[in-house]
Amino acid sequence: MTGTTESTATIGRINADRLMSRIMELAEVGKIDGGGCSRLALTDDDRAGRDLVIRWMDELGLRIETDDVGNVVGTWDVGTGAAVMTGSHIDTVRTGGKYDGNYGVLAGLEVIHSCRDHGITPARPISVAFFTNEEGARFAPDMLGSLVYVGGMSAAEAHDIVAIDGLRLGDELRRIGALGRSPTPGPTPFAFVELHIEQGPVLESRATTIGAVTGVQGISWTEITITGQSNHAGTTPMALRHDALLVAARIAAFLRDLALRYGGNQVCTVGKLDVHPNLVNVVAARATMTLDVRNTDENVLCKAEAEIRDYWQALARDEGVDITERRLARFEPVVFDGRVVSMVRHVATRYGHSVMDLPSGAGHDAQMLARVCPTAMIFVPSHKGISHNPAEHTERSDLVAGADVLFDVMLQLANMTDHADLDAFA
Amino acid sequence: MTGTTESTATIGRINADRLMSRIMELAEVGKIDGGGCSRLALTDDDRAGRDLVIRWMDELGLRIETDDVGNVVGTWDVGTGAAVMTGSHIDTVRTGGKYDGNYGVLAGLEVIHSCRDHGITPARPISVAFFTNEEGARFAPDMLGSLVYVGGMSAAEAHDIVAIDGLRLGDELRRIGALGRSPTPGPTPFAFVELHIEQGPVLESRATTIGAVTGVQGISWTEITITGQSNHAGTTPMALRHDALLVAARIAAFLRDLALRYGGNQVCTVGKLDVHPNLVNVVAARATMTLDVRNTDENVLCKAEAEIRDYWQALARDEGVDITERRLARFEPVVFDGRVVSMVRHVATRYGHSVMDLPSGAGHDAQMLARVCPTAMIFVPSHKGISHNPAEHTERSDLVAGADVLFDVMLQLANMTDHADLDAFA
Repeated sequence: MTGTTESTATIGRINADRLMSRIMELAEVGKIDGGGCSRLALTDDDRAGRDLVIRWMDELGLRIETDDVGNVVGTWDVGTGAAVMTGSHIDTVRTGGKYDGNYGVLAGLEVIHSCRDHGITPARPISVAFFTNEEGARFAPDMLGSLVYVGGMSAAEAHDIVAIDGLRLGDELRRIGALGRSPTPGPTPFAFVELHIEQGPVLESRATTIGAVTGVQGISWTEITITGQSNHAGTTPMALRHDALLVAARIAAFLRDLALRYGGNQVCTVGKLDVHPNLVNVVAARATMTLDVRNTDENVLCKAEAEIRDYWQALARDEGVDITERRLARFEPVVFDGRVVSMVRHVATRYGHSVMDLPSGAGHDAQMLARVCPTAMIFVPSHKGISHNPAEHTERSDLVAGADVLFDVMLQLANMTDHADLDAFA
Repeated sequence: MTGTTESTATIGRINADRLMSRIMELAEVGKIDGGGCSRLALTDDDRAGRDLVIRWMDELGLRIETDDVGNVVGTWDVGTGAAVMTGSHIDTVRTGGKYDGNYGVLAGLEVIHSCRDHGITPARPISVAFFTNEEGARFAPDMLGSLVYVGGMSAAEAHDIVAIDGLRLGDELRRIGALGRSPTPGPTPFAFVELHIEQGPVLESRATTIGAVTGVQGISWTEITITGQSNHAGTTPMALRHDALLVAARIAAFLRDLALRYGGNQVCTVGKLDVHPNLVNVVAARATMTLDVRNTDENVLCKAEAEIRDYWQALARDEGVDITERRLARFEPVVFDGRVVSMVRHVATRYGHSVMDLPSGAGHDAQMLARVCPTAMIFVPSHKGISHNPAEHTERSDLVAGADVLFDVMLQLANMTDHADLDAFA
């Protein structure tokens, strides 16, 4: 089958002006200073964004279904069998950019629109989804809509989640008219491919246009609270101190050193640290800090977690402080379908783009879809790796390149008879 | 002279019940939960405390003078020559204890009261002072009143200082009726001895009742601001980070290690650290921290400051962050008069109390008086070293022991003809 699909696919390229125009029009909704967007999930701004994208789906003649957690799927009902799905999300963080999520959804519409332009009709339906509350900036957890879509959480449980502003998800779905009648879990796609900006600096730093995303790093988030003893900074000899801030500092340094020692994909971050009483001349009584530890290999991630815990326990004994821990989040690494990843690599190369394999350091809806169907992601460069920021930027040529690759990969998948056809890329 | 003064001094001991009763009565003014006091300088609560202590001075028949910065000096006008002065302060931090400052002032009154009880009349006047705004919790700098008393700042300059609540010191002095007519600098005492709780754990940890305070540590306070780059904690490889929090952590650890390496009286503290944006999954863009570095030796203090700066400058280059510094405070070490310190040691031993030399890690009014006359301090233990806290506690027997030593030292000084008499203690 691959011979046929390749020859079909190379006919078409997406319409770059139309893609850019839709991105810029959606970016006007919830626009903030600096060129960014603020469309927290299920707010009025999110509703306005949803209405716009649903109108575009409608203009394309797609069959639009909204499910009981507000995920919207627009399907081009052609051919037979399970649809090949693409998509992402259109909610943003409070100070988000134009591209995070939105790009993948609008490129999905462009794939269908360009097929029409070129008179291409695939063998399977193609659907484009946007999932509710991917960012997790208003409701926890993040990737909520796609989690419910694949059956990882019930819609009823999701409805009871309370936002940072105190409102219930179910009530907010109803309020903005995003509570649909399609049941979850939703239909299992034949395959899922998500196009997204990298949100990191790797592609740009290696002057590479396309990232073939091999999977998503496992994430371990722990909050630890160190309780020492508040004392006068002038009168308390060093040997008699129980300094919570000093312990926090040593743990932060240990995480950096561990990440450098492990190498590879290991990253460790202490991004949040709160000190009490936080005064210049008082030895800190308490420090609360977060540990963000990620690796693509679950065994290595577990080893890092254990080593970090051993370190802080020994440190607590030495300094005479108490440490309690609270798990904030824990996701095992996700490995994408190697065959779909290989397709991405092949297509990018055939289009003359530089390409490299890389894991995603951030979470994405694709990692939920990977539970139910062959899945992969395509990354394009983020300028300076800046993301979740109005200054988020990707060059137009890179956005177009990524959409072209998505177009070709989607078409090849949509012309496959069954999953065995994927083995040509094994 | 020492033979004579010793035989006189050992006659008297202070009245323990009366001392404790005055301490507890003053502690009722501005009382807060947990047994502490809140009498920020020149507030209504401070005024109520001042009124009470002035009433006691008046009942003792002292000549009461209030100067143009609100310092109050009560003098027992006997004998001839410059007065021997004791005293401290009665303002507190917002969540202060019963003893910090108050103890020294009320023990001073008790010295005079006990002389009366025992029919002792010294050769020189004895005065008891309480100085304005020693704590610095409402107006900066701390030890303001004693600084003005010795001519280190003009009253006019002091009046223009603005409180943390936005009010002007001169206006607040006037409002609470604490603006007196005595000019500053005030009369130079023959000698000054301040009795104070240690506010640290050293005496208690060595089971010692009396501290003969040899001087006050030099203090270097610096605020540094580290500016790195905010980045996604999952997608930014370790090698591409400019992590402000990591740099702050390494500096905090370096200060601890430097203090241990230097040993002796060297103490270093990072008590305050603020992180931006302070999120679990974002590499910190900015960290602001304070460095509190103290030593009794000015040369060593300068060496520590230089070494710390070298360290952070190298670190800033390695991590690719900017660091700016702001000096918050810098006091050179103060060395008390060795002869007066020796008197304290001798008297304590003669009274059967354990005694040790130690420097003060905290600032005290005595360090200002040391600029103009032979000065020393007497410390008594602080339970667990807790201070600036309602839980501040010193055992009654220790409070009484300290006041007895003060009584004897003051009497010996007040019976001296001139400073040459001090040489007997050299």
